[in-house]
Amino acid sequence: MASNLSVVNDGDSFSYTESEFLYYRFYVPDVQAALGYILPVVADALRHIPSWIVDDDTHRIYLTGGKNVAERSDVMKKTVFALRDTRKFDILSRWRNETFPVYGPQKEILFHLERSACPLFGVVTYGVHAVAFVPPQTESEELKIWVSRRAKTKQTYGGMLDCTAAGGVSSGETSLETLVKECQEEASLSPDYVWKHATAGGIVTHFYVRDKRAGGEAGFLQPEGQYVYDIPLPPHIICKNQDGEVDEFFLWTAVEIRRALINREFKPNSALVMLDFLIRHGVLTPENEPDYIEIVSRLHRRLSFPLR
Amino acid sequence: MASNLSVVNDGDSFSYTESEFLYYRFYVPDVQAALGYILPVVADALRHIPSWIVDDDTHRIYLTGGKNVAERSDVMKKTVFALRDTRKFDILSRWRNETFPVYGPQKEILFHLERSACPLFGVVTYGVHAVAFVPPQTESEELKIWVSRRAKTKQTYGGMLDCTAAGGVSSGETSLETLVKECQEEASLSPDYVWKHATAGGIVTHFYVRDKRAGGEAGFLQPEGQYVYDIPLPPHIICKNQDGEVDEFFLWTAVEIRRALINREFKPNSALVMLDFLIRHGVLTPENEPDYIEIVSRLHRRLSFPLR
Repeated sequence: MASNLSVVNDGDSFSYTESEFLYYRFYVPDVQAALGYILPVVADALRHIPSWIVDDDTHRIYLTGGKNVAERSDVMKKTVFALRDTRKFDILSRWRNETFPVYGPQKEILFHLERSACPLFGVVTYGVHAVAFVPPQTESEELKIWVSRRAKTKQTYGGMLDCTAAGGVSSGETSLETLVKECQEEASLSPDYVWKHATAGGIVTHFYVRDKRAGGEAGFLQPEGQYVYDIPLPPHIICKNQDGEVDEFFLWTAVEIRRALINREFKPNSALVMLDFLIRHGVLTPENEPDYIEIVSRLHRRLSFPLR
Repeated sequence: MASNLSVVNDGDSFSYTESEFLYYRFYVPDVQAALGYILPVVADALRHIPSWIVDDDTHRIYLTGGKNVAERSDVMKKTVFALRDTRKFDILSRWRNETFPVYGPQKEILFHLERSACPLFGVVTYGVHAVAFVPPQTESEELKIWVSRRAKTKQTYGGMLDCTAAGGVSSGETSLETLVKECQEEASLSPDYVWKHATAGGIVTHFYVRDKRAGGEAGFLQPEGQYVYDIPLPPHIICKNQDGEVDEFFLWTAVEIRRALINREFKPNSALVMLDFLIRHGVLTPENEPDYIEIVSRLHRRLSFPLR
């Protein structure tokens, strides 16, 4: 039995023995907790931008301006523009014009940050992943799962496999709202159906070190939470794409999914969500997955930053 | 909405900022990894027992004898008898005459250890927990869960609530075998039914600091893995106890379960398993549980010891 631990290593790639001198911890005024890890190449760029203090002795970086959400968001925005103007960061050429909220220790929003810039500051971001599946209709049938193949033209992970639908939870959205929107756009599932039948199944938390397939340079740090939702579908509801982000859909058995996972055909964070689904539904078991305990823990990594 | 984080704190009570001088790390020959944490009171007793080296500089304790499973198990057994003879440890008065396997880094069994002595060495132990539930029979019905109340005469956690059935995975048993046995003894569920309908749903891992209700002295360290199994039941199958370990069964709604959790009526590790069930089944959600992310991570703690 092949272990799926190497699949987990792809999506949860940041070391568990955190070496504090490989990066800087990111702080904002009046908040005790570090909000993320910043690489030295970004620290060097921040030295030249007003409102930032880079302390090489403590390996800490402080944002100095901003008394409230609006002010902090504004100074972060100016910082990201200044970083973009340096043309040193490919990652910022993939501008999204969409912001993600960054939270403090009381789950308060500290500021909103342009999505493409989040990995520069190593802050936690959140997504939703929906797994639509057709339960067995008879005793001899198997569960089947709707898997999508990302458009080859997508800037990130083009042509790789995904769950049924997924997306980032932007500023002002709840995870359920993101879920409903993405299920409609990516898989043509009606909002009514999703509201009624989608079930929360937990959250996959992991710490990803970006690789080349993510677009832009490798190495930036991305702690992430993926809210997972299960959507049982009757056989007559067919997933089809509306927004051009998906090339095709497959209705696959667990065996087909497991083969694709081991072959690394899934986008790294979607692979983690799919493993979690297979574990929660009793497909991967202590009997057939040799690294069961390690995998279940790794899919729910405790992130050492404030969370929403 | 009341948070369940305090319920998690009860069962996952060992600090996440491990202070290495509050305990000793436990090593056996030829194995690099620490197998558990030993309290100073046990270290002091081990100083007087052959085959043990207590190093106060490194806060490490070494078992020196034993080249194979049989030899190591034998020296551990002699050690436990010697500890019992000191009459210093109440915990050993609850002798089980049942052993748990202790694993090394390649998932090899290193030795078998009397169950009641495991907390003295802080080694990881494993259990199974079954949650039997009756799915809603109509659209207006709710999921109901079979909950048991432990016999008031039980030495540990007498009178507290449990999942449907649970037990430790002893030496030589698989988790599925333990599941089937406990479901029969504790809830009268037939082995055939359990083999056919029980579904693995993951594993809850946590690090428990024993309190008085566990029997014996408080403070010993218990890293644990609880294999969780879901068992859907039709309304006509009734759980009833056979072995005298359960006083009564209840078929409760999620609301009743949540009230009992918040009121601390569940045994601490059963409470964690019940929270995990409620999360996997979409009862506790990001919308109604303010500490959702922290709780999901804590229920799947990454233990820093070799695991099975």
